Amino acid sequence: MSNQKPTLPKGTRDFGPEQMAKRNYIFEPIKEVFRKFGFEQLETPSMENLSVLTGKYGEEGDQLLYRILNSGDFLSKTSADDYANGSKELSKKIADRGLRYDLTVPFARYVVMNRNEVAFPFKRYQIQPVWRADRPQKGRYREFFQCDADVVGTDSLVCEAEIVMMINEVFARLKIDDYNIVINNRKVLTGITEVIGAEGKETDFCVAVDKLDKIGEGKVLDELRNRGFEESSIEKLVPFLSIKGSNEEKLQQLKEIFKESETGTQGIEELEKVFEYIKAFGLEDHHLDFDLTLARGLSYYTGAIFEVKVNNVKIGSVSGGGRYDNLTGAFGMPDMSGVGFSFGVDRIYDVMEELKLFPEEITQSSQLMIANFDPHAEIYGMGVLRKLRDAGIRAELYPDGVKLKKQLNYANKKHIPYVLMLGSEEMETGKLTLKDMREGDQEKLTVEEIIKKLSDRAED
Amino acid sequence: MSNQKPTLPKGTRDFGPEQMAKRNYIFEPIKEVFRKFGFEQLETPSMENLSVLTGKYGEEGDQLLYRILNSGDFLSKTSADDYANGSKELSKKIADRGLRYDLTVPFARYVVMNRNEVAFPFKRYQIQPVWRADRPQKGRYREFFQCDADVVGTDSLVCEAEIVMMINEVFARLKIDDYNIVINNRKVLTGITEVIGAEGKETDFCVAVDKLDKIGEGKVLDELRNRGFEESSIEKLVPFLSIKGSNEEKLQQLKEIFKESETGTQGIEELEKVFEYIKAFGLEDHHLDFDLTLARGLSYYTGAIFEVKVNNVKIGSVSGGGRYDNLTGAFGMPDMSGVGFSFGVDRIYDVMEELKLFPEEITQSSQLMIANFDPHAEIYGMGVLRKLRDAGIRAELYPDGVKLKKQLNYANKKHIPYVLMLGSEEMETGKLTLKDMREGDQEKLTVEEIIKKLSDRAED
Repeated sequence: MSNQKPTLPKGTRDFGPEQMAKRNYIFEPIKEVFRKFGFEQLETPSMENLSVLTGKYGEEGDQLLYRILNSGDFLSKTSADDYANGSKELSKKIADRGLRYDLTVPFARYVVMNRNEVAFPFKRYQIQPVWRADRPQKGRYREFFQCDADVVGTDSLVCEAEIVMMINEVFARLKIDDYNIVINNRKVLTGITEVIGAEGKETDFCVAVDKLDKIGEGKVLDELRNRGFEESSIEKLVPFLSIKGSNEEKLQQLKEIFKESETGTQGIEELEKVFEYIKAFGLEDHHLDFDLTLARGLSYYTGAIFEVKVNNVKIGSVSGGGRYDNLTGAFGMPDMSGVGFSFGVDRIYDVMEELKLFPEEITQSSQLMIANFDPHAEIYGMGVLRKLRDAGIRAELYPDGVKLKKQLNYANKKHIPYVLMLGSEEMETGKLTLKDMREGDQEKLTVEEIIKKLSDRAED
Repeated sequence: MSNQKPTLPKGTRDFGPEQMAKRNYIFEPIKEVFRKFGFEQLETPSMENLSVLTGKYGEEGDQLLYRILNSGDFLSKTSADDYANGSKELSKKIADRGLRYDLTVPFARYVVMNRNEVAFPFKRYQIQPVWRADRPQKGRYREFFQCDADVVGTDSLVCEAEIVMMINEVFARLKIDDYNIVINNRKVLTGITEVIGAEGKETDFCVAVDKLDKIGEGKVLDELRNRGFEESSIEKLVPFLSIKGSNEEKLQQLKEIFKESETGTQGIEELEKVFEYIKAFGLEDHHLDFDLTLARGLSYYTGAIFEVKVNNVKIGSVSGGGRYDNLTGAFGMPDMSGVGFSFGVDRIYDVMEELKLFPEEITQSSQLMIANFDPHAEIYGMGVLRKLRDAGIRAELYPDGVKLKKQLNYANKKHIPYVLMLGSEEMETGKLTLKDMREGDQEKLTVEEIIKKLSDRAED
C-alpha cells in the first residue's frame, strides 16, 4: 500500500456534513414542489453506451464526454494500426461506454425504451450528477448535479404555466425574493426574422441578440452586419429592440408589428395564454419578465424559453428551460414534444451563500448530546437516549468518558445546541442538567420536559 | 444522428417512477434513522484518482475497477512500446481516474484530507452508487447503491450497540419482522485459534468455519485438515462448534473455555458490554443472535462483526459490518479505528418485494387529477389547483382537453386515486364532482371539503 497523500481529481468536490446540510436544504423543497405538481422521479445509470451519447451534443460536446475503458484486455480487439491512427480512432475500439453528460439524452432514451409502459403526458423529474471533461474554473465542475423537470407528450401551454408556478414556489421556499423569470418564445424570434426579411437566419439573429445585454445595441447591429444581414433588415430591426413597458404593453406593441407574421403572432398568443393561466392560478407576484432578447440555446427550443436571474448577485442565470418538439427523434421516435426546466443547484447554492439565506446554524446533526461522565452515567444515558429518540429527537451519547471539555468541543464543532449532564444527583432525582450551548446557561429538567422543550423548538 | 434502437449498458438499470417510489420508501427511513442517531451525511465524487483506489481491494478488486480514459489526446504520452506491452501496462498511462468501487476508501480519503476540520468521533453516513466491472447476474449489478454508516475515532462499544439499535429501528420501520442480527467478534475467533493451538491461523480458520452452514461440520473439519490444522487442534475445536443455548448461555460456555485465552476473553467481554448497552437502551426484541461461526470478511475487521439475515427468504445477508482498527493507514494516517455498517438496499428491495411489504399502491404521484373538459373548465381548474396545492395536496390538471376516457386511463396508469370533474353546473354551484378511481363512485364536494377528505386520507 502506498503512503502518498491522497488528492481529489481536479474539478470534483467532496460535500462534507455542512455542505450536505445546505445542499439538502435546496434539494428537499425542489423535490417536494416537483411532487406536488405531479412530477414523478426517474433515475438512469451513470454510464450509457457511447452510441447513445455521441452525436447528441455537437462536436464540442462529444469531446467533453468521459469515456470508460472497456474491462479486461481492452486491446484484444485492436491492432498496432489502430494505435497508429491516434487517440480518437483508438478510443472507439477500447471504450464502449461513457458517463452521462446531461439528463435529457438519458431521459429521451428512457422514453423510447419504455414507450409502452409510460403514462403520457409523462411528467418526470430527475436529480443526478452529470460529468463533463471541461476545463475546471470557479463555478464550473467536472461533476455536478442537474435537477430537471420535463413534461413530454403534450403541446399544452398549461405545462409552461406550471413551470412558472413551480419556479415561484421553489424560490419562495428558499426565501430568494428578488429574481426575474425571463420568458420569451422562439416563435417570436422567428417572427422577427420574418418581419425584417431575414428568414432562416434565426440562428445568427439569436446568437447576436443574445449579446445585447453584454455588448450593447451598436455592437449587436455590427455583428448582424458581419453575419450578412441586409441594411434594410437592420433598419427594420431597431424598433424591436426598443419595445418597452409592462409585459402586457410589450406584447401589445409586438402584436401590432406582427400583423404580417403568422409565426410571430402565434408566439405572442402562446405567451398570452401562459400569462392567462398564471393569472387564473392566482399568482400575483409571478416575477415574470417578457424579454424578446432572451435567446437561450440555438436549435433545440421551439416554443417558450425561460431563464431565471437573481438580481443584485453577480451570477448568470440560475435556472433555465424551454419547449422543444423533438426529444426522441435521434432514437427513431419522432414528434415527441415537451417542455422542460432545470434548476442550477450549484449556482443557487452560491446565491444563497452570497445573500446569507441559509439558516445560521444549518445542520442535520443531533439536537442534543448526552455527556459521558462515567460507566454509570453511560448506562443511565442509554435509557434517556431511547426516550428522546422515540419522541423523534435527534440525539446521541458521547461514546467515551473523556474530559468534559473535549466533549463540549465536539458538541460545538457539530453545532449541537444542547448538552445533557448526568451527575449522581441528577440520576437520583430525575432532574437532568440541560446546558444551552449557545446561551451558555443551564437548567434542571425531567426527560419529559426536555422532550417538550426540544420539540417546541423544532417547530419554530 | 443515428436512428438505432437505444440500449442500456449490461448490468445497469433505469429506475422508473414506481421503482423510485419503492426505493425512496427504503432510503427515507434509513436516512431518518441515521440522522436521529447523530450521523451526518457525506458525499464524495464518483471518480477518484486511481492512485487512491488501486491496491485497496486486492488483485481481484483492482481488476473490477472502472477506469476512465484520460481526456483529449490520451495517447500523447505513450509510445508504440506501451501499446505492445498490453492492456494492463497501457491502461496505467491512459487512465488516471477510476469510478468509486465502494464508499469506504473514499471515506478514508476524506477523513485524511479533512482531519483538521472533522469533529471526531466522526459519525458519517453516505448513500451513493458504486461501480464494479463484475459479470452481471441476478441480483448483481455493475452500478448499485451502497448505504453506509460509520463512526471513526473511538473504540467505544457504545457505537456497536448503536448500530444494533439502528438496524432494529430501520427494519421495524420497513415492517420486516422476522430477521436476525447475527453478531460475533473477531477476538472470539482469534481466541479459539489460541485455545486449540493454531495461533496465527485465524484466516484459514475463518474461511473454513464460514462454510459451516453450507457444507456441515464434517467437511469443515476436512477443510481444516487440508489447510494444515493438526489433529490435536481439530479435536479441541469440536466442542466450540456445538456450543448452544441463548446468547447469554453461549457466552457463559465460551467464557469457561476461554480462561486460558486473553484475546478470547476480551472478545466475550466486548460482546457482553454490547448486550448490556442494548439492555440499558430498553430494546427487548433486539433480534441479536450471537453466532461464533460468523466470520465475515478476513483481515479487515478486528472486533465486532455483524450480518443481518431475513428468515424464510432465499437471499443471503441483507446488511453487514463490523469494527476495524486501521481505516486510513494506507493514506499514512495510522490508528484510525471505527465501526461501520452497510444496508444492502438492493437485497432489502428484493426481500420487500418477496414478502409483499411495499404498500399496495405505492406512488409519489398526484393524489388528485383535475379532468380537462374545455377551455373554461381549464381556467377554473387552475384556481382549484392553487387551493389544493396550497393545502399541501399533490395535484395536477390534465393538460389537454381530450376525451375523458383517455384522461381517466392516464389517472389509472399513474395510480392517481381521485379525479375531479368540472362541468358547468359544478362551476356555478362550487360543488365539484370527485370521482374515486378505486371504488368507482363519485360525490359532490366543495374544494374545502375535498381538501379535508384528502388530508385525512394522507394521515392514515
